[in-house]
Amino acid sequence: MSKEMFDKGLAMRKRVLGAEYVEKSLAAADQYSRPLQELVTEYCWGAVWNRPGLDPKTRSILNLGMLTALNRPHELKIHINGALTNGCTREEIVEVLLQTAIYCGVPAALESTRIAREVFKEQDGNT
Amino acid sequence: MSKEMFDKGLAMRKRVLGAEYVEKSLAAADQYSRPLQELVTEYCWGAVWNRPGLDPKTRSILNLGMLTALNRPHELKIHINGALTNGCTREEIVEVLLQTAIYCGVPAALESTRIAREVFKEQDGNT
Amino acid sequence: MSKEMFDKGLAMRKRVLGAEYVEKSLAAADQYSRPLQELVTEYCWGAVWNRPGLDPKTRSILNLGMLTALNRPHELKIHINGALTNGCTREEIVEVLLQTAIYCGVPAALESTRIAREVFKEQDGNT
Amino acid sequence: MSKEMFDKGLAMRKRVLGAEYVEKSLAAADQYSRPLQELVTEYCWGAVWNRPGLDPKTRSILNLGMLTALNRPHELKIHINGALTNGCTREEIVEVLLQTAIYCGVPAALESTRIAREVFKEQDGNT
Amino acid sequence: MSKEMFDKGLAMRKRVLGAEYVEKSLAAADQYSRPLQELVTEYCWGAVWNRPGLDPKTRSILNLGMLTALNRPHELKIHINGALTNGCTREEIVEVLLQTAIYCGVPAALESTRIAREVFKEQDGNT
Amino acid sequence: MSKEMFDKGLAMRKRVLGAEYVEKSLAAADQYSRPLQELVTEYCWGAVWNRPGLDPKTRSILNLGMLTALNRPHELKIHINGALTNGCTREEIVEVLLQTAIYCGVPAALESTRIAREVFKEQDGNT
Repeated sequence: MSKEMFDKGLAMRKRVLGAEYVEKSLAAADQYSRPLQELVTEYCWGAVWNRPGLDPKTRSILNLGMLTALNRPHELKIHINGALTNGCTREEIVEVLLQTAIYCGVPAALESTRIAREVFKEQDGNT
Repeated sequence: MSKEMFDKGLAMRKRVLGAEYVEKSLAAADQYSRPLQELVTEYCWGAVWNRPGLDPKTRSILNLGMLTALNRPHELKIHINGALTNGCTREEIVEVLLQTAIYCGVPAALESTRIAREVFKEQDGNT
Repeated sequence: MSKEMFDKGLAMRKRVLGAEYVEKSLAAADQYSRPLQELVTEYCWGAVWNRPGLDPKTRSILNLGMLTALNRPHELKIHINGALTNGCTREEIVEVLLQTAIYCGVPAALESTRIAREVFKEQDGNT
Repeated sequence: MSKEMFDKGLAMRKRVLGAEYVEKSLAAADQYSRPLQELVTEYCWGAVWNRPGLDPKTRSILNLGMLTALNRPHELKIHINGALTNGCTREEIVEVLLQTAIYCGVPAALESTRIAREVFKEQDGNT
Repeated sequence: MSKEMFDKGLAMRKRVLGAEYVEKSLAAADQYSRPLQELVTEYCWGAVWNRPGLDPKTRSILNLGMLTALNRPHELKIHINGALTNGCTREEIVEVLLQTAIYCGVPAALESTRIAREVFKEQDGNT
Repeated sequence: MSKEMFDKGLAMRKRVLGAEYVEKSLAAADQYSRPLQELVTEYCWGAVWNRPGLDPKTRSILNLGMLTALNRPHELKIHINGALTNGCTREEIVEVLLQTAIYCGVPAALESTRIAREVFKEQDGNT
């Protein structure tokens, strides 16, 4: 592991997903999940998200499309929160999901939109 | 079919994919493929791409991620050309594809990057 | 939006999925989910399901196969109910799902069959 | 292997895909592909396609949807031929593929429709 | 159905997934799910798992990769238990899942690792 | 980039896929594909394949299953060659692919088996 890349990745991961969430994830890791947590922090967040070639908001939008296509609602929920942190409006998020209906099919778009509404309601409940 | 939505869709489709390509597609349509060509033009290009909620460049970036996840290289090639038309630089396109390695897996990213290079070479050959 | 196509779609959607379910879905829609609800009603139910080329029972059977392949159990449940409404027997539904084992793999068929049994039990409980 | 089930499967496979094609496939099988060829003949064609619960035409329609969703154009081509043999008209086949646009997404439907047209052209060329 | 192959399959299925679990599955089968239960027992467990070409531990490892790629967490959980029965250590199981991050993408690996930890906790709770 | 991890990854990648193939890939990389080539070498081959938790032969078997499930024939071909290098026999490779028929579906297994036979023929032609 490259300590420097891990630290850069950790900072980006906290910035996008929230420091509290990330610290909880890492603290909950045990001997079985720690290698994957470290790999994700270093490569996904350090080696890719940290690159200057795309701004974080655009990376979030891209993720919403990929996670819908890949049928991964658990990660999608985390990244809808991340998209809001990165400056996407709710309107932009649902616009992205509307476009997924065309390319990924209607069932995929319906499920992702359901999850977006859950996130929005959780946020409204917290205010 | 809504004639107005079809016409709006046709204009957007030509703007993104090129008038020549779209006219060829429609001219080549026969009784078997025409209903789908019309549905795509009206629904995909008219009812979704025409919406003001996201700019065309962002819609293109989103498509590159979805088409990589969905494993549709034929359409991906068309939309890499569309992304260039919509103002993406080559550097941004390959940056998008680098991010797909993390979420869609390395084989998906390798294949999409191969296709991007094909498009770039075809363009360079045309100049 | 084409009002005429939306209305045709709404009638078909109610006929297949039940008026009560569809009215609840539309009433529950908010500013974030309404554009997708409208797109689905107009294009999926109006522009495609309404076409005369295949009878509704055949369209339902086709959907059970696609939704199993696409791994979308939430929509599958809705469309198993729709298939029963469109005249499929329970025996035909599980015969369709048996065939998915060959093409989509055994795990897909097992999950869809579990959902079919849930639907059948809910129906039996309601009588 | 159950010899009886294999023989039943072989008869059904030849009936749907054509005796010539199936005999060529089996003759071309070597020690590496023979176990799979036998499994497919017995299990897919003997134990499932032979069941009386759905007529062959309906099984073909179901396959066109699943193979589109699964992104398997090579097998799709074989089963479009099988669908024609089982009594589907060309109009019904493209109607099935139009419906896949909604559930599997537009890129999937475009690719499958391209393949259907190839099959139709090959048939027209043979007459 | 070949009674002999079914019996061989049943013995292998019980050996890998546990006699208690398999007997419960078969006892719970009704007229709707019985044909699939029988097909799975005969073909999956009898005609494939019983073959001598790969040892059961290797077959389990292969399944963990396929079920992660196929996004089938319900079956994955059953086969993580099966992998432990077939002699995989917990360390080997999470090593397999770490490799899925590269090929299937990070969201797939995170979900499968979550399920592996659930299985490990259930086992620890039972001791 | 961690130079040490890249070098370890490069050595493993050459060991599995062949030095000639890997050197050609890296030499052919241009500014557009180089970041991905480096990420793959470091992250896939350095940080994962290099780990001692699974032997290379088992990692190859796992890959054949995942690449079949993911529908990535181009990468599959490369990894069938890698599997042979890592000590898999042809019989073991086709046994793996037979098992994919059950979990990924018959069309997936047929396509992967076709590719395996291509690799075997290319090897036989070279002797």
